[in-house]
Amino acid sequence: MKTNNKKIGSQTVKLTNPPKIISSYSVVGPKEGEGPLKEYFDQILNDDTCGKDSFEKAESEMMYTAITQALSRANLQECDIDYLFAGDLLNQIISSSFTARKFEIPFFGLYGACSTMTESLSLASIIMDAGCAEYVIAATSSHFSSAERQFRFPLEYGCQRSATCQWTVTGSGALVLGHEGKFPEVTYVTTGKVKDYGQKDPNNMGAAMAPAAVDTLVSHFKDTGRKPQYYDVIATGDLGSVGKELADKLIAEYGFDIRANHMDCGEAIFNNELQKTAAGGSGCGCSAVVFAGELYKKLMRKEIKNVLLVSTGALMSPTSSLQGESIPGIAHAVSIEMK
Amino acid sequence: MKTNNKKIGSQTVKLTNPPKIISSYSVVGPKEGEGPLKEYFDQILNDDTCGKDSFEKAESEMMYTAITQALSRANLQECDIDYLFAGDLLNQIISSSFTARKFEIPFFGLYGACSTMTESLSLASIIMDAGCAEYVIAATSSHFSSAERQFRFPLEYGCQRSATCQWTVTGSGALVLGHEGKFPEVTYVTTGKVKDYGQKDPNNMGAAMAPAAVDTLVSHFKDTGRKPQYYDVIATGDLGSVGKELADKLIAEYGFDIRANHMDCGEAIFNNELQKTAAGGSGCGCSAVVFAGELYKKLMRKEIKNVLLVSTGALMSPTSSLQGESIPGIAHAVSIEMK
Repeated sequence: MKTNNKKIGSQTVKLTNPPKIISSYSVVGPKEGEGPLKEYFDQILNDDTCGKDSFEKAESEMMYTAITQALSRANLQECDIDYLFAGDLLNQIISSSFTARKFEIPFFGLYGACSTMTESLSLASIIMDAGCAEYVIAATSSHFSSAERQFRFPLEYGCQRSATCQWTVTGSGALVLGHEGKFPEVTYVTTGKVKDYGQKDPNNMGAAMAPAAVDTLVSHFKDTGRKPQYYDVIATGDLGSVGKELADKLIAEYGFDIRANHMDCGEAIFNNELQKTAAGGSGCGCSAVVFAGELYKKLMRKEIKNVLLVSTGALMSPTSSLQGESIPGIAHAVSIEMK
Repeated sequence: MKTNNKKIGSQTVKLTNPPKIISSYSVVGPKEGEGPLKEYFDQILNDDTCGKDSFEKAESEMMYTAITQALSRANLQECDIDYLFAGDLLNQIISSSFTARKFEIPFFGLYGACSTMTESLSLASIIMDAGCAEYVIAATSSHFSSAERQFRFPLEYGCQRSATCQWTVTGSGALVLGHEGKFPEVTYVTTGKVKDYGQKDPNNMGAAMAPAAVDTLVSHFKDTGRKPQYYDVIATGDLGSVGKELADKLIAEYGFDIRANHMDCGEAIFNNELQKTAAGGSGCGCSAVVFAGELYKKLMRKEIKNVLLVSTGALMSPTSSLQGESIPGIAHAVSIEMK
């Protein structure tokens, strides 16, 4: 095994011993719980502070809840888990680190902005496939109120929002990976490159991330030889309605039409007109709860069989934007199939 | 290969096809270039702005330099590299993301505070060992001036520093991993758990990280059956002089004496008395440049044969400290051996 016998094409790994997603849990805030996907979420908070004295602590509590409940659903205890891969949007990923502090589980902290769900699922799957683990957890979180005040304006300011703005999802999703049982399998992992088309408007993340999503999708199709139609659902997240439309147009230039089965987690989670969420949801928690909520359940019920989850992230910081930088994007694709 | 056949003990992976560190590069700032390790660094900057208009951009430029030079030393091009694992201290790890933007290499962004060098080396080694890659790069960076103003005070403020303070290292280190040749091998990876003994003083990171270093070291010795004496060098980083002394005392309570071969990258990089760096160096770049500089060269010359590199991180943010939280620590150990 001296060479890269699992790598296919330029940026895809074919898992030879595909790990299975043996449980999932999604917890969301009140606003997400009023949206179109409300029936799929495992827990809808009445109080988005979770009884804590800061939104940052509340976010960490959500992730703790998602992980402990996903563990419980898998009939496992924390001592059964070999690794925790987690990340979030906050500076120094404190939501994840302070959650990890409560567990005796070896921890890898990740930052991929809103792409973190598939970053964590990719690495968790690879370490499982490598024979390094029996069980691994992949988790992410985001919180509207902790993100808004960190990235944009004080909550009290009541700033006007542009039509291309997205609304950070309050939520956390956790997945437990194992080797046994009748569960959806992770079959391919396509890792994204950083793409930057020079977009500088931090109120239009969808446009910044769309090229990254398209780059990773095109690489996935080329590397695997699969066509978009192979998948029942291609779920990007979180391009929002603006970025989704751009991605559909851009990928057509590469000869692929994904419109028939393309959903975007950011577009799906809110009713943008009724809920006044402009271009849709965003945040590490968005694709996490849409997958752990809706898509995982549909896979388990065999309503769908093949999902390509493509979480997308905008790798900027307020500092980089203030220094005049454009917004680089990244997207990681994970193929999840129910046999 | 249905089970975790590479996992030994509670938190260690034994690499069955150990990847080799086929090249390294270290670039440091002027102050580091006047310290005790100056002869080992590959490049010493005269100007820590690297000609850029911000310290954040300068930090990114340093990482870009470390990666391109490490690639060049390995006689490789970026198209040969399967993955880049990188992280830094800045909010949203912009140094790493903006560096990754310049390369067409699939990118995994990491955050483990000052533990990030062994976090990236751990994951890079596991993905190599798994047969998913031919070549992988692991890199980190930090910059005194970008970190100081983000985590503490404006640079112009000229705040007094306590005796337990550490000085963020300006520097970046990059390692290229491959499968062939006579190079140091990564043989074991022991992944840390988050440890928090309730220390709340952000001016004493060494005390916050020492318990994590000890926890990981004890697990490594138990999991592998190795004794501290097996290693020519046990290099923690960056506990500084205060944290190093604490770690030596604390690990004695577990029955291990590491004093004979224990060095700390934070203590080693500066002459604390002459350079007025209080308890020593810190930052993602610290253990990166000490390993890529001094230790890698000594391994290549066979002056030493076995190194246990244990980068240590304090997983706080200014927000968590302001909200009254204590400082969780983490440490990841990687065993590197020249056969």
